[in-house]
Amino acid sequence: MSDITETESRWLSDEDLETVRGRVPMVYVDAVPVRVDGLGEVTRIGLLLRAMADGTVSRALVTGRVQFGERIRGALLRHLEKDLGPVALPRIPTNPAPFTVAEYFPDPLVSGYHDPRQHAVSLAYVVPIDGEPEPSHDALDLAWVTPEEAASAEVRAEMTGGHDRLLRLALAHVGRLP
Amino acid sequence: MSDITETESRWLSDEDLETVRGRVPMVYVDAVPVRVDGLGEVTRIGLLLRAMADGTVSRALVTGRVQFGERIRGALLRHLEKDLGPVALPRIPTNPAPFTVAEYFPDPLVSGYHDPRQHAVSLAYVVPIDGEPEPSHDALDLAWVTPEEAASAEVRAEMTGGHDRLLRLALAHVGRLP
Amino acid sequence: MSDITETESRWLSDEDLETVRGRVPMVYVDAVPVRVDGLGEVTRIGLLLRAMADGTVSRALVTGRVQFGERIRGALLRHLEKDLGPVALPRIPTNPAPFTVAEYFPDPLVSGYHDPRQHAVSLAYVVPIDGEPEPSHDALDLAWVTPEEAASAEVRAEMTGGHDRLLRLALAHVGRLP
Amino acid sequence: MSDITETESRWLSDEDLETVRGRVPMVYVDAVPVRVDGLGEVTRIGLLLRAMADGTVSRALVTGRVQFGERIRGALLRHLEKDLGPVALPRIPTNPAPFTVAEYFPDPLVSGYHDPRQHAVSLAYVVPIDGEPEPSHDALDLAWVTPEEAASAEVRAEMTGGHDRLLRLALAHVGRLP
Repeated sequence: MSDITETESRWLSDEDLETVRGRVPMVYVDAVPVRVDGLGEVTRIGLLLRAMADGTVSRALVTGRVQFGERIRGALLRHLEKDLGPVALPRIPTNPAPFTVAEYFPDPLVSGYHDPRQHAVSLAYVVPIDGEPEPSHDALDLAWVTPEEAASAEVRAEMTGGHDRLLRLALAHVGRLP
Repeated sequence: MSDITETESRWLSDEDLETVRGRVPMVYVDAVPVRVDGLGEVTRIGLLLRAMADGTVSRALVTGRVQFGERIRGALLRHLEKDLGPVALPRIPTNPAPFTVAEYFPDPLVSGYHDPRQHAVSLAYVVPIDGEPEPSHDALDLAWVTPEEAASAEVRAEMTGGHDRLLRLALAHVGRLP
Repeated sequence: MSDITETESRWLSDEDLETVRGRVPMVYVDAVPVRVDGLGEVTRIGLLLRAMADGTVSRALVTGRVQFGERIRGALLRHLEKDLGPVALPRIPTNPAPFTVAEYFPDPLVSGYHDPRQHAVSLAYVVPIDGEPEPSHDALDLAWVTPEEAASAEVRAEMTGGHDRLLRLALAHVGRLP
Repeated sequence: MSDITETESRWLSDEDLETVRGRVPMVYVDAVPVRVDGLGEVTRIGLLLRAMADGTVSRALVTGRVQFGERIRGALLRHLEKDLGPVALPRIPTNPAPFTVAEYFPDPLVSGYHDPRQHAVSLAYVVPIDGEPEPSHDALDLAWVTPEEAASAEVRAEMTGGHDRLLRLALAHVGRLP
């Protein structure tokens, strides 16, 4: 994966990142992991479970920053492998266009997507997972839920920053919004 | 594949088909088979080779009619398996929306897509092939060409009915039009 | 509008239509009329009001069949003008690909889209309306609702055949699903 | 246009911009201005003419940076008005997803899109122009060319940085690639 090696070398210190974050929008990718059947129909959606500081559990999508010099495809694969492990076998889409663009702002009222740290422009993709994900990094678990469960009020209440809305947009994109 | 069994029973005689063809547009699917690398980038395009009545060889995409009662996804899989064999392992897209719609008319000047037999509205998809295709049905062979070759004047000259244009639209959709 | 004149001449008797409907899928278009602001953001969705046989009022999208020899664009414009009048000034999208494909079946359980008369494959588009619609044909009225109202349980209950779901998919496509 | 006023205040000095450019990808928008007919079919593509340092004339698309705190829609409108004047009346798309993503790198071999100054991730949109553009800023003129002319070798030779390829992808997206 020479792509990753190259980009890792474009290291950015925490201090530099803080400076940059206040001046330009950051480029991000969001990935909605899914299981599909032989006809390409989405049957399950993968939601990461994370432990929050207050003891509650939050559900999240795979998300992360695109680094200097890194291709979008490389960033997608890197963040999917970081969160789902090396044998998840994600199927990065052939079409470079995202299904939607989520604009995260420090002010939660601007767009409905919220990130207190920064203004981020995130390209969102639905990514079928063929292999066996092993939640890693800071994820406690990966739960595979049905489209109906993914769109439920319960799941909505457990997601933050607008990820619940992004998830419903993904369900709509694949024709599986209940 | 109960989907296929069900639809095969909706048999339509040749005579009935002729009658219907003159009265309403037919629903079709077009599939552009591709090979992708681990980053989802299209590396090769699969073109069927067919022997023509005049002894020449023509290149073609996978194409076929959607039957009464059949899902689009089922029709895509059925035609891909018919032309590429049972172990081609096509990856039907998760998104039900085609990348373009090709409108075939008996008059070649209406839209640039031409079918002397009928007015057909065809939903076109790019389909990654994971397995080992074995050209069958009336296909002589399947050639895997690069995006550059697929967009070349040589390949354009060997395709008919507007399939060369549909192929370039597919290359553009995946960001690989030279 | 020579396009319309031409297609109107491809007349199909009610009897012929019945025969054809039982043998092949029909090609349809669905249009979601919207109002947009200067930034292209959807601010209102137009829902037709129709009087039902049982005295209730139903809300519906613009929908109709594509005729033999007719372009998709021509069918979209024809049905929009039929339901919204001649000065609605619909903006037919530049991209021929629909945002989704709704597959209507006589059996309501196959796909979630239901049409007791036929199997129809419908290409769905979001269409900004610039002019002054005058509901005509068999529409009682056109109501402009907000995205929040369009996604509400109340509106969902007043739509049939899966049009409520198609409407939510349209809202998601334009990034306005609440 | 409060959106513009707000973002203009997020001023970034040339020095700061240089620093940031070497550390993270910049967010850009590319717009392909088009004229459409009443059926939404693209009839002409608008190409900016710019005088180059060496005395030649170069053709270009509308392009520009997304500022901190600025919505994608706002950046699109701002750059279109900057290059085409205040009465161009651009129709920003309802769908926030771009038709493709162009990844510009200082190294011209990475992606085929090239920007010697920076790594930019650009969201590309096709934008119908309803009004009367008056080329301004540093544009000499705006030429409306046919899809055939836009895809010609002559126009390709006059565009730089991969804009010729982006233009052909736009033509393919609207079904007008010859």
